[in-house]
Amino acid sequence: MGRYGKRADLIVHGHEPFNAETSLAALAEDSMTATDAFYVRGHGAVPEIDPAAWRLRVHGLVDRPLDLSLGTLREAFREHTETATLQCAGNRRAGLIAIRDIAGEAPWGPGATGTATWTGVALADVLALVHPLPEAAHVGFDGADLCPEARPPQRFGGSIPLAKACRPEVLLAWGMNGEPLPPVHGAPLRVIVPGYIGARSVKWLERIELRARPSYSYFQHVAYRLLPEDGTPGPGAGMPLGVVALNADVLSPADGETVAAGPVEVRGYAFAGGERHVARVDVSLDGARTWSQAELLEDLGPWAWRHWRLTVDLAPGEHEIVVRAWDSSAATQPEDEAGLWNPKGYVNNARPRIRVRAVA
Amino acid sequence: MGRYGKRADLIVHGHEPFNAETSLAALAEDSMTATDAFYVRGHGAVPEIDPAAWRLRVHGLVDRPLDLSLGTLREAFREHTETATLQCAGNRRAGLIAIRDIAGEAPWGPGATGTATWTGVALADVLALVHPLPEAAHVGFDGADLCPEARPPQRFGGSIPLAKACRPEVLLAWGMNGEPLPPVHGAPLRVIVPGYIGARSVKWLERIELRARPSYSYFQHVAYRLLPEDGTPGPGAGMPLGVVALNADVLSPADGETVAAGPVEVRGYAFAGGERHVARVDVSLDGARTWSQAELLEDLGPWAWRHWRLTVDLAPGEHEIVVRAWDSSAATQPEDEAGLWNPKGYVNNARPRIRVRAVA
Repeated sequence: MGRYGKRADLIVHGHEPFNAETSLAALAEDSMTATDAFYVRGHGAVPEIDPAAWRLRVHGLVDRPLDLSLGTLREAFREHTETATLQCAGNRRAGLIAIRDIAGEAPWGPGATGTATWTGVALADVLALVHPLPEAAHVGFDGADLCPEARPPQRFGGSIPLAKACRPEVLLAWGMNGEPLPPVHGAPLRVIVPGYIGARSVKWLERIELRARPSYSYFQHVAYRLLPEDGTPGPGAGMPLGVVALNADVLSPADGETVAAGPVEVRGYAFAGGERHVARVDVSLDGARTWSQAELLEDLGPWAWRHWRLTVDLAPGEHEIVVRAWDSSAATQPEDEAGLWNPKGYVNNARPRIRVRAVA
Repeated sequence: MGRYGKRADLIVHGHEPFNAETSLAALAEDSMTATDAFYVRGHGAVPEIDPAAWRLRVHGLVDRPLDLSLGTLREAFREHTETATLQCAGNRRAGLIAIRDIAGEAPWGPGATGTATWTGVALADVLALVHPLPEAAHVGFDGADLCPEARPPQRFGGSIPLAKACRPEVLLAWGMNGEPLPPVHGAPLRVIVPGYIGARSVKWLERIELRARPSYSYFQHVAYRLLPEDGTPGPGAGMPLGVVALNADVLSPADGETVAAGPVEVRGYAFAGGERHVARVDVSLDGARTWSQAELLEDLGPWAWRHWRLTVDLAPGEHEIVVRAWDSSAATQPEDEAGLWNPKGYVNNARPRIRVRAVA
């Protein structure tokens, strides 16, 4: 068992702050990701919070600000449980770094994502009690974690549009996979914004602010923005990330693995953000010339990825396996990573490609 | 002036039923598309309807069916006007036909799309009065136009999810660009489903049915579905189309045009369906190696395309201009059409490429 109750097979990108991704083998076990295998993306030390003293302040462009204890939150509002995939905007960055180095950003592989059930209350129910003013258009979140990398150093934060915040799927969660939310995942309370990049699901939540404009947090206004290839990070530069772009990767076999020739099960995940779902996943063994449709596995609802699998017959020798997912708008993934490189290394959603060697 | 009050410069793909797309020059004139230039996609003869005798039936999985005259509709519900882009699922099919022929489908260019204001009532307001039953999950629409191409021949129809139907942007419209809706565009009443393929904006509406499952109309269950490259159209085959995939094309200069060397304005449209918006448009003159950002023109709201422009400096000689749009999820367009070919020729959303010759 590693730090924070995590399994030893997590791939650790940093110890302080703690950043670790789930191994492909652990992701491949099940469409649901076990809590002790779930990836952690942190920008500061895990704060120590006394749940009995913790308060949530809801203020800003509202008619009636609130200041709530955890007990009041749990007593006043109806409990909801939802299955949702979280995915870091830096998931699969390693594929971009392979093209050109990205200084100061961790080389996340395809394991900066996972799917869990989350239990809490609907943010919409809380917002209904504060009566947002007509000029409120965004909902900002502030956590308790101090992030030294931000300029100036500040607590983690971000915002989502009010229209999204009012949708029933957005939760303030205290539970994960049927157990109390672990401290490393944001206890006592975190936001869960299904379909959005993980950064908007702010952990260790302390403050909700109704705003006319998006948050000026470093993590909304400077970081987590897609810059053009020749761009420079700065306040307001590039496009803010929110809804997750269609993505997919292969979980098994591993890239570079040697397998027995004959039937081989290829398995992976595909995730369509926002209000879209995964409609099809194709696998090619001949360099994207012809494709076979993979079987989509368990449907965990509108906010979760789909695992998929296809058994292919591999003759002895070297093989490249290429995969492409399609979402419900009939959009598919970009062919390759070359056109996706960006200075902060976000949103690598190119078709995954792996090489395997089959031996008789 | 051509048939149905259309300008003579429409590109006519068929006379009976009438099918015609807007010329690139007409689209380039303005972000709003004039009614007399707006594309027409029909599957049957334009029906002759007496508005005084016309009725709208709303039935199916509802507590209280309705049968409404146009007068009642206009009196009972609040009027809404909305700017929305319509885009045919077959827009840009010509680019797919260039790879391999598609029998029985018209070679639409990039003009099977346009943006207008639509005036009518919110479908949600009508649905609120019929009280959908808990098992209702889809809303089916039937028009008055008999379509000989369907098997068996039938009136045009289709459906959208109830959740979308309840969104305020979905209209039952009697007005277009501030004038009465013309017969060729669906008078007396049509559906407008912003962000969805044009086929769901059913014209000459006569019947709305609340359903547990999507419509079994030929145009939902057989046509307007994305098949795999080696697929065969049939009931339920392929994925149903709904939300429009991110798309873009160049309106000026025209492909193959000869222009004066020096500064040349490149202008086009980009459209992100569903709840996404166009976040960036890039233009490349060196075969997608380096890109310059185009200026996004007038923002017509969440349901409309963006026109864009960039002035490039062209030396005398041959040039290829490649464009890619990005949506608010940081998704971009597929590199080229080769991977997008499908048996019915839908959803060509590859990066547009044009060739121009600059002369001194």
